[in-house]
Amino acid sequence: MRLSFDEVRRTLAAILLEHGLTGPRAEECARLFAETTRDGVYTHGVARFPRLIQMIRLGVIDPAAEPERVSGFGALERWDGRRGVGNLNAARAMGRAIELGRAHGIGCVALGNTNHWMRGGSYGWQAAEAGLIGLCWTNTMPNLPPWGSAEAVIGNNPMVLAVPRAAGPVVLDMAMSQFSYGALEASRKRGELLSVDGGFDENGTLTRDPAAIERSRRPLPIGYWKGSGLSTLLDMTAAMLALGRATHELAPDSLQETGISQLFIAIAPAALGDAAQSEKIVDGIIASLHAARPEKADRPVRYPGEQTLKLREENTRRGLPVDETLWAQIVKGSF
Amino acid sequence: MRLSFDEVRRTLAAILLEHGLTGPRAEECARLFAETTRDGVYTHGVARFPRLIQMIRLGVIDPAAEPERVSGFGALERWDGRRGVGNLNAARAMGRAIELGRAHGIGCVALGNTNHWMRGGSYGWQAAEAGLIGLCWTNTMPNLPPWGSAEAVIGNNPMVLAVPRAAGPVVLDMAMSQFSYGALEASRKRGELLSVDGGFDENGTLTRDPAAIERSRRPLPIGYWKGSGLSTLLDMTAAMLALGRATHELAPDSLQETGISQLFIAIAPAALGDAAQSEKIVDGIIASLHAARPEKADRPVRYPGEQTLKLREENTRRGLPVDETLWAQIVKGSF
Repeated sequence: MRLSFDEVRRTLAAILLEHGLTGPRAEECARLFAETTRDGVYTHGVARFPRLIQMIRLGVIDPAAEPERVSGFGALERWDGRRGVGNLNAARAMGRAIELGRAHGIGCVALGNTNHWMRGGSYGWQAAEAGLIGLCWTNTMPNLPPWGSAEAVIGNNPMVLAVPRAAGPVVLDMAMSQFSYGALEASRKRGELLSVDGGFDENGTLTRDPAAIERSRRPLPIGYWKGSGLSTLLDMTAAMLALGRATHELAPDSLQETGISQLFIAIAPAALGDAAQSEKIVDGIIASLHAARPEKADRPVRYPGEQTLKLREENTRRGLPVDETLWAQIVKGSF
Repeated sequence: MRLSFDEVRRTLAAILLEHGLTGPRAEECARLFAETTRDGVYTHGVARFPRLIQMIRLGVIDPAAEPERVSGFGALERWDGRRGVGNLNAARAMGRAIELGRAHGIGCVALGNTNHWMRGGSYGWQAAEAGLIGLCWTNTMPNLPPWGSAEAVIGNNPMVLAVPRAAGPVVLDMAMSQFSYGALEASRKRGELLSVDGGFDENGTLTRDPAAIERSRRPLPIGYWKGSGLSTLLDMTAAMLALGRATHELAPDSLQETGISQLFIAIAPAALGDAAQSEKIVDGIIASLHAARPEKADRPVRYPGEQTLKLREENTRRGLPVDETLWAQIVKGSF
């Protein structure tokens, strides 16, 4: 079924109000969820909302807690997320990084003791729409084996890099695993193999069979040893700057995963002047991608985030696609 | 053959002096090359030296040019590399990012109009040894097809992320291609298949055969579409902040690849205090990796850069391994 953006936003906001978020915070949190579905990131939008409410009910997330600046030096600050709502905390941290970026050319906020930020791309869009380059990452509970082991002791630690642009920002939002467990499940339910190897089976052989990877719990880091290394460094830098928890200290349970660490960086190209020339450079890169001969004639090469504006327009016009059963559960609060 | 670090450094410095570098600059450039070989990054150390001299002789690199600050705002600066020596320019840019990081908590230098930085890890080590987190990346000439095309219009754009640590920094230095052309060549010469798929053959099928990838010119981005996207964003951010050239504007010829763009970021954990606690967090992550059961009993899980200190010690003690034919050519200047 399809629902208007406003209906989704209002409904979620009302439920958040009942669960301890004050008015403007409930509104902002609901808006972030609705925008995520509107932008086509269906796994992290309305579909994730029940988990947030469950975690509030379990007392894992404190709905009233607001993030707090712990220390700062110039363009670098450390914030405590106080186990509050993850997307509100992340938006606040990127908001502060943007302020610092405007004041100093570049700004950085390390956020500890927070919760799942839902769609990481939200904070890339936030920076880019403010005219800044956004770079942020988060650690996660252990859900990925490092290269050389079958034991999941590192996280899939999503990283976001976003570039402002008048014709539409360029936003990359990528986890360090080749496929999320959500993507494996979806592929299995469709009865399809993955498009490329997505992990190891129980015999330690690379496979495109999603069910085999779900059984072995061995999804693949992007680039094998490379993504394994990058995941480790993202965890280290976020946790050490936030003085927060590292992946190995987080509960390997999506309802108990709390106290995570994140890093937000914003760079202001306009601070150096020549913003128009900067943008021409970005446009030139996009033109070079679009000029590359596609392997399949009907699938031109795309830049990261290129589909978002189209999906946003379509979903705004036609309504947000929401699973009917899920929506009934949300409205009834039965999850 | 093995040569002492000092012999390598002195020999290279003397050649650089003859090629237009002034005394201290020749010393520093030679030291960076010798350190790269000493640290076991053999592809980018002494083995790359002839290419630098060739490019100076061709007039592509200006041996006398020193990088220059073009503009700045707080913790963010733009520098012009003036087509000078790539590793000296990069070391200067990271040096300035470190100064800015100490003054503002985080510092950022965009460097345009520069040349190949040789071993990217050098600048990660530089930041980490100064006690700062280092993050830097460079664009390259077009050498990698973006996802969805067989045409090489993006670069393999190496990225470096480094963390300071008393017991030895953690340094990740990774290109956006799964294997470099150098690695493909080495594997082919050994008559070995790659350990994992490294690209497409001429029929568009994924393959572990290095020769097939050399023929098709279709190496694989790490994580397929993900590394393709990250490469694009690294190119955009470096070029737009430096107001420099993007990958598609660079000559696809390793002797003519000049005017490239790079970005250097340094973050000072000590600026927020609690540096000892930060370091304990990093040590904890390393301990968790080392505790993961390895797939092969004799190959424990390693953190990025873990082997460097061992290789450094061994090569310092036994001498730097240098190819005899190559060394004879370098000494004679016949390349």
